[in-house]
Amino acid sequence: MSARGKLYGLGVGPGDPELLTVKALRILQAAPVIAYPAPEQGPSLARAIVARHLDQPKEEIAIRMPLSSARYPAPEIYAQAAARIGEHLDRGRDVAVLCEGDPFFYGSFIYLFAELGQRYAVEVVPGVSSLTSSAAALQTPLTARNDVLAVVPAPLPPERIAAALRHADAAAIIKLGRHFAKVRRVLDELGLAATARYIERASMTEQRSLPLDQVKPETAPYFAIILVHRADAAARLALGTAAIA
Amino acid sequence: MSARGKLYGLGVGPGDPELLTVKALRILQAAPVIAYPAPEQGPSLARAIVARHLDQPKEEIAIRMPLSSARYPAPEIYAQAAARIGEHLDRGRDVAVLCEGDPFFYGSFIYLFAELGQRYAVEVVPGVSSLTSSAAALQTPLTARNDVLAVVPAPLPPERIAAALRHADAAAIIKLGRHFAKVRRVLDELGLAATARYIERASMTEQRSLPLDQVKPETAPYFAIILVHRADAAARLALGTAAIA
Repeated sequence: MSARGKLYGLGVGPGDPELLTVKALRILQAAPVIAYPAPEQGPSLARAIVARHLDQPKEEIAIRMPLSSARYPAPEIYAQAAARIGEHLDRGRDVAVLCEGDPFFYGSFIYLFAELGQRYAVEVVPGVSSLTSSAAALQTPLTARNDVLAVVPAPLPPERIAAALRHADAAAIIKLGRHFAKVRRVLDELGLAATARYIERASMTEQRSLPLDQVKPETAPYFAIILVHRADAAARLALGTAAIA
Repeated sequence: MSARGKLYGLGVGPGDPELLTVKALRILQAAPVIAYPAPEQGPSLARAIVARHLDQPKEEIAIRMPLSSARYPAPEIYAQAAARIGEHLDRGRDVAVLCEGDPFFYGSFIYLFAELGQRYAVEVVPGVSSLTSSAAALQTPLTARNDVLAVVPAPLPPERIAAALRHADAAAIIKLGRHFAKVRRVLDELGLAATARYIERASMTEQRSLPLDQVKPETAPYFAIILVHRADAAARLALGTAAIA
């Protein structure tokens, strides 16, 4: 058999197993090999999202990543994973890489794609992102009509966060974690704290939303998001003050 | 029976019927009433996306909208639709509103939510957006690591588009339609045309991507998107010039 296997980047959605797409489910069930990111020890979130559908035995590749952000994205770990995946593809076996949310939206699949995308057939299956699942869970529209939306990673310096917010009607500040206090200061300086809404782990079992003032800065997890709207955009979205936490 | 029905905003994804989520499928099949946006005459795209699953007869409410952008979003049409939907909810019948992409991401569901959200129980089911399905179809990562992403509606004035692009690492310019030529000029002025990728109707049967130079400005549809990356962000994403159309 000379035909090579196909590499799938499978978006498995933000956490609720039901937010998997019908397409991702079909490809997952057909794939003889799956790969997924995992912490250095313990279970993989991406695998847990689809676990109920893993009734057939498959070859599994856990891509274990040290948590230390200094080493991220640890190119040698992706290179090793790419080599293992490539061996399966060379033997004609399709490999489905499970990706939390969407593979191409801040996803680590991008590193595997950079390693393998030139040599193998690749199909990316988009998934529901934490961006829209956070808005759904907060019952807060993200954007309407001609709003400019900024997606802003919290690890950036405060002046870059502020500049991005100034040029947007609505923003999602992602990857909060230990950057919460800094982000809170930027929102206060820009007068945006009143319309800001905070949510952790949207769509997961542990989902939690609370008013900004009640967030303990040191406890915000990485999977936490703040949605914020400029006052005029909030008014267009009918986000009345009564609805603002 | 005194219990009121529940209003669902169902994200049905960007066009490929397989990009429906398992959750949206379950709620769709259980709902006795569905509502969906539709043109003044002819079929509804949102309904077409789920048509294969409409094997049981349901009550259907087509929310027909005049195409003339001058009248959009035509508040009286949403008010009428909200009243009809409210009658079903009052009689204890759940209503699922079908939304292309995601209900809260530039979706017209926002207007129904503004009318009905205070009076009825609402659940929003997030969907795969055209944003990530365009990236998947173009095999172009949207964003990695700490990239700032801007989502920029093309109908905005050129100076607002330029300002949003200047403060982002990556951008998606949406709703191109008759605004293509203006957007092209902005990209040229900012030196961003070389990394820009164009796609129409991502994930639909009629999906088409082509180099920016080959787009006839007068033919770009509303469902067309340009993805653009600043040079340094493109390099981080390993978007080599070889991969750029």
